[in-house]
Amino acid sequence: MTATDPGDPAALVDAAVAGDRGALARLLTVVERGGAGAHAVGRLTYASAGSAYTVGITGAPGAGKSTLTGSLVAHVRRLGQRLAVLAIDPSSPYTGGAILGDRVRMAEHALDDGVFIRSMATRGHLGGLSLSAPEAIRVLDAAGFAWVIVETVGVGQVEVEVAGAADTTVVVVNPGWGDSVQANKAGLMEVADVFVVNKADRPGTDATVHDLESMMDLTHSEGWRPPVVRTVATIGEGSPDLWAAVDGHRQHLEASGGLVERRKARVRAELDLIVAQRLRARAESLLGKTNRITVQSEVTAGRLDPWSAADQLLAPLDP
Amino acid sequence: MTATDPGDPAALVDAAVAGDRGALARLLTVVERGGAGAHAVGRLTYASAGSAYTVGITGAPGAGKSTLTGSLVAHVRRLGQRLAVLAIDPSSPYTGGAILGDRVRMAEHALDDGVFIRSMATRGHLGGLSLSAPEAIRVLDAAGFAWVIVETVGVGQVEVEVAGAADTTVVVVNPGWGDSVQANKAGLMEVADVFVVNKADRPGTDATVHDLESMMDLTHSEGWRPPVVRTVATIGEGSPDLWAAVDGHRQHLEASGGLVERRKARVRAELDLIVAQRLRARAESLLGKTNRITVQSEVTAGRLDPWSAADQLLAPLDP
Repeated sequence: MTATDPGDPAALVDAAVAGDRGALARLLTVVERGGAGAHAVGRLTYASAGSAYTVGITGAPGAGKSTLTGSLVAHVRRLGQRLAVLAIDPSSPYTGGAILGDRVRMAEHALDDGVFIRSMATRGHLGGLSLSAPEAIRVLDAAGFAWVIVETVGVGQVEVEVAGAADTTVVVVNPGWGDSVQANKAGLMEVADVFVVNKADRPGTDATVHDLESMMDLTHSEGWRPPVVRTVATIGEGSPDLWAAVDGHRQHLEASGGLVERRKARVRAELDLIVAQRLRARAESLLGKTNRITVQSEVTAGRLDPWSAADQLLAPLDP
Repeated sequence: MTATDPGDPAALVDAAVAGDRGALARLLTVVERGGAGAHAVGRLTYASAGSAYTVGITGAPGAGKSTLTGSLVAHVRRLGQRLAVLAIDPSSPYTGGAILGDRVRMAEHALDDGVFIRSMATRGHLGGLSLSAPEAIRVLDAAGFAWVIVETVGVGQVEVEVAGAADTTVVVVNPGWGDSVQANKAGLMEVADVFVVNKADRPGTDATVHDLESMMDLTHSEGWRPPVVRTVATIGEGSPDLWAAVDGHRQHLEASGGLVERRKARVRAELDLIVAQRLRARAESLLGKTNRITVQSEVTAGRLDPWSAADQLLAPLDP
């Protein structure tokens, strides 16, 4: 099998379910690449998925998300449960490569079958991560991981969407540099199910915890109120508390029926994205390359505005 | 005119060009809202745009981008040039509101006709910011601002795309917390035309400058090499150096023909987005709401996978 050949998806899925980590890695590459191969994998894993519980971890660059994820991995392994980590890295369309740190982290757990760590990029296709992340989670689910941690690199729109689509979303801030206010600006307050103040051995921790609690006093009058947990991820301090908070949220969701509703909303959004992507592909083939290039030249020369150009390009589709 | 009535776009454009700031603000609201009103404005401003030079400012939350932008505003006004600031905030689909800080910042320049500051959110439409940001820039261009600074809130995919689509892109990092490495992870290294180490009165500044220069030794063998500028934005220190670096990049682009190429690539990308958005709207109306809801229920009940559901929904479009 060559690097670009997805092979037989059904055989790969069977092998991954049986514990073949190489097959699992190849499946995730197929999913990441998108297109027909990814859809074949999606069809195969959809029915069997639904057992894994997903935890999103997001926050500003430098907040210590990778270190925190590492400390959770250690904690969950001590509890004897299998887990996978999916590191979402939408910036990679620019480089097209996996993160070096990913391989370093994976090496730590190379002999532990109960952990699987993988980073995922978009490979440049629009809506890519929002589509490929749930597919990748289903693959990991089918491979028998009880927990899937989805860790984001940035805090932009796509990352917030992906992390916010987890069953439980953890938002990581730091003490002392207005991080709680920045979290609010970045839309993180509204996706958070659990807050973590990481680097809680630094000055300003109490003030940051207080800021978060004050913001929640304003916004959370009923239902689940996100707890604020303090951690020092570099030494694993607070990881059990954080995991207990995640588990508390899980119990709340399961008891309230919220989990079923969240998952339904997610799959509806996924269906919308799939339909949009297919329509786009179909339309691009209909438009025709030659006409497109001619119209583009008129626009870049300033002789035609982009809206009138779109009218011209789409005219052949009218009945 | 009511708050939701875009009014007569041509009259608004004429008024904004003549210096009416209320008309300008209303035009930007029309653009932000998207749809037919935005396209009408786009058609009206396309031919007359192209004089303004755009500067993107991006970097991690907390890096001091707003403060740095403020110090640049003060510097450019001392030079006697008119400029506008567009603060890109893609997180706002969650809140749908403008940033309070925006109004605070605007108040500082309330009596200065040479400055216009405005934040812009997506209002929830897909591809929204990537479409509305260039339209907004054209409106500000037509209104006679020589410079448009595009400042982002986060460093996600959308923000990096929008900031990276400026004529000159400034990437802001801080000393001492591995920010340069994080910038690399977030894809910022590849869009940067100028680097700023802000908060350069803090320990670790030399190390961060050194990190950035080392990374560039590896990646920039020819062409423009981004200079690294030190600033302390809170006291305006380094703003003249930063502006000189921006101007240096502008001269390089103008001399090399790179500016024309950048702008052509941008308008091609914009045309693609407009076509994709129109196709989506057209397809959604074709699909029909009732059928969609039925198929959705099958998917959320687990009886149908999303890919087969997409097949069913799209079948009526086949000839």
